[in-house]
Amino acid sequence: MENLVTAIGTPNIALVKYWGKRDVGLNLPYNSSLSMTLDESLNTKTSVLVSDRLQSDTIYIDGAQQKFDDAKEEKFALLAEVLNYMREAASSSSKVMIVSRNSFPSSAGLASSASGAATLVFALNEAFGLGLGQRELVIIARRISGSSCRGLMGGFVRWERGELPDGTDSYATQVADNAHWPEVVDLIALVSAEKKRISSSEGHRRTPSTSELFKVRPEIAERFAGMASRAIGQRDFQTLGEIIIKDSNNMHATMLDSYPPIMYLNDASRRIIYAIHDLNASEGRIVGAYTFDAGPNAHIITLKNDIPKIKAALQGIASEEKIIVAGQGSGPRVLDESESLIGKDPFGQIKM
Amino acid sequence: MENLVTAIGTPNIALVKYWGKRDVGLNLPYNSSLSMTLDESLNTKTSVLVSDRLQSDTIYIDGAQQKFDDAKEEKFALLAEVLNYMREAASSSSKVMIVSRNSFPSSAGLASSASGAATLVFALNEAFGLGLGQRELVIIARRISGSSCRGLMGGFVRWERGELPDGTDSYATQVADNAHWPEVVDLIALVSAEKKRISSSEGHRRTPSTSELFKVRPEIAERFAGMASRAIGQRDFQTLGEIIIKDSNNMHATMLDSYPPIMYLNDASRRIIYAIHDLNASEGRIVGAYTFDAGPNAHIITLKNDIPKIKAALQGIASEEKIIVAGQGSGPRVLDESESLIGKDPFGQIKM
Repeated sequence: MENLVTAIGTPNIALVKYWGKRDVGLNLPYNSSLSMTLDESLNTKTSVLVSDRLQSDTIYIDGAQQKFDDAKEEKFALLAEVLNYMREAASSSSKVMIVSRNSFPSSAGLASSASGAATLVFALNEAFGLGLGQRELVIIARRISGSSCRGLMGGFVRWERGELPDGTDSYATQVADNAHWPEVVDLIALVSAEKKRISSSEGHRRTPSTSELFKVRPEIAERFAGMASRAIGQRDFQTLGEIIIKDSNNMHATMLDSYPPIMYLNDASRRIIYAIHDLNASEGRIVGAYTFDAGPNAHIITLKNDIPKIKAALQGIASEEKIIVAGQGSGPRVLDESESLIGKDPFGQIKM
Repeated sequence: MENLVTAIGTPNIALVKYWGKRDVGLNLPYNSSLSMTLDESLNTKTSVLVSDRLQSDTIYIDGAQQKFDDAKEEKFALLAEVLNYMREAASSSSKVMIVSRNSFPSSAGLASSASGAATLVFALNEAFGLGLGQRELVIIARRISGSSCRGLMGGFVRWERGELPDGTDSYATQVADNAHWPEVVDLIALVSAEKKRISSSEGHRRTPSTSELFKVRPEIAERFAGMASRAIGQRDFQTLGEIIIKDSNNMHATMLDSYPPIMYLNDASRRIIYAIHDLNASEGRIVGAYTFDAGPNAHIITLKNDIPKIKAALQGIASEEKIIVAGQGSGPRVLDESESLIGKDPFGQIKM
């Protein structure tokens, strides 16, 4: 067989966080989480070429070739498993070339691996012509990168904790699509593109096994996830915003309580946190709700009308060119062949 | 009556922290805490003049006159109460002049108010010739500044949580005097003299009332306090060091989980934390154990022999002149009249 597919996907920002794996191999979380899928302001483009003319499976991310058997990067071994699973399901013996490119820095707490994994699983399904259902794709994506499973659909998405040891009930469903409450946007303030000192996968293991405070985190986050879903249903930004702030700080607190501690917030993050609380206090309402993933860059969830107020509050902390405003997206989609990152002639050429 | 007394006292550094008041008026803690009283490397000198020739009660701290009825500084109102209590106990009607000076910046997480309150209560007892017992002084000091009650004796000190609503069983006792394990010292790395954004007294209220994680903090700290006492008894630095690190991070985690969050660690604090973990990992033992009060300055508890290793690890983060090494002290003591901060002739002159 020979097929070339290009897809685009996006990060999703967790409003109620996933931190801590109850099963490391299956990427099963301790608590349900809730996210917003972003539009293509930040995106991953991935081309998959399936062809008998290829000699071996290769994968290039942001221009660099990656090894499927890299011991330090277990996600690539999982990827190889997924690839073989899909190849078998398609009764194919063709080799695969994957070229993926992020429009933003990776390993800086901008959910690049979630965006990458969601887009890749989507693209592989298309390239092999498998027609797998969304729930099946969600569970495949979850195994590669937990939070990527929330990125296969648009709008607001809830990832169920689940109860079963095999993880078949730990999948993502849409709470509301991106037409339900489009006023909600993510204003991203980039304060650092530095790679994190402690990887998310190490952190997901370390916090549950060493933090005393983490014992109560799953129950707190589960409650927050329920409250946030209801707030989204009612378009209640005051309730949603307070949960977003509390949940982010709650997660980072359990990170700090780990041994050795994990600290992703820096002085710029802290200045943003205080600036947002000052703004909210002076306006007498929650204008912005910050949330931080495993990195110092701030995601400020706000309503479109309030973007100028947030930008004014960040003056002197994050300059205009360090701010990206992303709306809600609708999940991954197939792009036209003209957008391919892999050339057909010369065969297998990587387009820059 | 007329009497002039000068005393010197020192800060104490908590190895298991006090954070959160179960009774705000009485300064009753949610958990027992454990501290080390420092030697006079950092100190507070306080002169108390009791005299019928004075027109009114006055107090000067670090050169500035303070108001006993300052609404923003409730500790001065408590101080006025204590002063009146002692005056009555001494059957005196004399007015008092208090001059107090810290050898280090205040409100920067260096326990200046604890040092100040312990020294003052000690000096007032001497100036009025009351001869109150240590337990009585401890409870008086606790009411002015909770952690000051640990500073009225030397070496390692435990402050009991207590159970009674009137606080009479929440007092401090010596775990071991400063001759028991004199190798243990506090290497203080000053990274900032900036005043904190959120006062300790506000934080003591905010965290218990808003942090979800704080619900489990008292039980954790109580356990840590017991373990730390035993480790001190056995001169077991490995166990003590691990508890010190975990307890500091645990407390700061509940601060971060408060709403709005309270954040005292800055980028320099974080660099120190990582440097100490790197050093401990490379030596295969706990060489240093950091702990932070309500400020970014690091207290690194270490053994005398390891001071050069800690200093080497801090190179590029805290310069030599920003490092103070304090051993263990024996608590407040009376100084010679030549050290008085108040002159007798001219009467009541403040000596610079």
